[in-house]
Amino acid sequence: MQPQMGENIGAAARAMANFGLNDLRLVAPRDGWPNEKADAMAAGALEVIKQVRVFDTLEEAMADLHYVLATTARPRDMVKQVFTPRGAVEALHLKAAESVKTAILFGPERSGLENDHLARVQGIITIPTAPDFSSINLGQSALLMAYEWWQAQDHTAPFALSFQASPVAHQDEVALFLTRLKSLLENGGFFKSPDLKPQMTRNIDNLFSRQQLSVQEVNMLQGMISALSRN
Amino acid sequence: MQPQMGENIGAAARAMANFGLNDLRLVAPRDGWPNEKADAMAAGALEVIKQVRVFDTLEEAMADLHYVLATTARPRDMVKQVFTPRGAVEALHLKAAESVKTAILFGPERSGLENDHLARVQGIITIPTAPDFSSINLGQSALLMAYEWWQAQDHTAPFALSFQASPVAHQDEVALFLTRLKSLLENGGFFKSPDLKPQMTRNIDNLFSRQQLSVQEVNMLQGMISALSRN
Repeated sequence: MQPQMGENIGAAARAMANFGLNDLRLVAPRDGWPNEKADAMAAGALEVIKQVRVFDTLEEAMADLHYVLATTARPRDMVKQVFTPRGAVEALHLKAAESVKTAILFGPERSGLENDHLARVQGIITIPTAPDFSSINLGQSALLMAYEWWQAQDHTAPFALSFQASPVAHQDEVALFLTRLKSLLENGGFFKSPDLKPQMTRNIDNLFSRQQLSVQEVNMLQGMISALSRN
Repeated sequence: MQPQMGENIGAAARAMANFGLNDLRLVAPRDGWPNEKADAMAAGALEVIKQVRVFDTLEEAMADLHYVLATTARPRDMVKQVFTPRGAVEALHLKAAESVKTAILFGPERSGLENDHLARVQGIITIPTAPDFSSINLGQSALLMAYEWWQAQDHTAPFALSFQASPVAHQDEVALFLTRLKSLLENGGFFKSPDLKPQMTRNIDNLFSRQQLSVQEVNMLQGMISALSRN
């Protein structure tokens, strides 16, 4: 509510479009609406967001909502649940699953939300930061909250291997390579001490087994040891 | 590496200071270093970050590092582990705990990192976005990664109650209030049907028990029912 800088409205809109949010409500923007600086910073996001509406008061903006969390940097003398961003989006997703209409409220740039406004919302969100540099601007806050909202919907594994180039090699392909490699090494006098051979063999096996190789890479390795053997 | 806009370097520095990171390495910044626009956008962060160093090449910048993850929006034809931001910081924290020196590499604004650069790092980070608006700028990427880094160190509960104003009420204080409330309600003829009284009593108990009340609030409620009873 009461955003002062068009740039911050634009940055918030961009963050919303990046992370699948589409109901932007502005309460009494200082420079009116539409706003050229917001347009420029939004980089096309205002067209992606389906709804951008302007209200005179917070009461009107919140009229059809059920559950609103407000961001604030400072603790207040008020009995209110305080969420981290991640905890907040969990709560918001749970509410949304119950068809409860939710929103996140951001305050004016300099002053933040007043206690009177905070008293009307269901909870507070405070973004944890390093203690010696805690100032986060409006656009950054909106980005972090929108990001967390989207990530909370993310049920993919935390990482994946990218094998566009070539499928993952089967273990028998890797084993064929390792057998040939060790045989060539043996021929080349690599295993000087019979006592140390088992350990050295394990180390080689481990080196080529602890990461997944693609078919292409195993073929490449085969070609490499062929080439080396031709010396 | 090869950042073009001073503003983005400043935004990245600010994100680092916000989230406790202090080793900024610039590879061949287009406009040289120092940079006025970076200073302005950093809002004091460049003084908070202990080290800002400039290198000519990626190789020099990476020389003393052990484990580097690079951000890229596009999938590449390369066999490489692909992390989400959250998965990436988990990996980085695990490495850091083993005294492995880690870093996150960001590419130039327009083009992003080249495949030759990506081939030198240990993994790739891709920030999940809404498919229809996936463009995230350099400053935003840095903010999200720095934020995730800090949050991964956060072992506090996902939310907490803010009770600066007054301590949490003990259950006996709440019970005293509820007993008095129900007695006053009884006197006022609230429980018209004896059959429904147990259920109505449960509903009242639940209403005042499902959220934690502060001592001040219980006192206020006591005062409220006293006031109501004086009508």
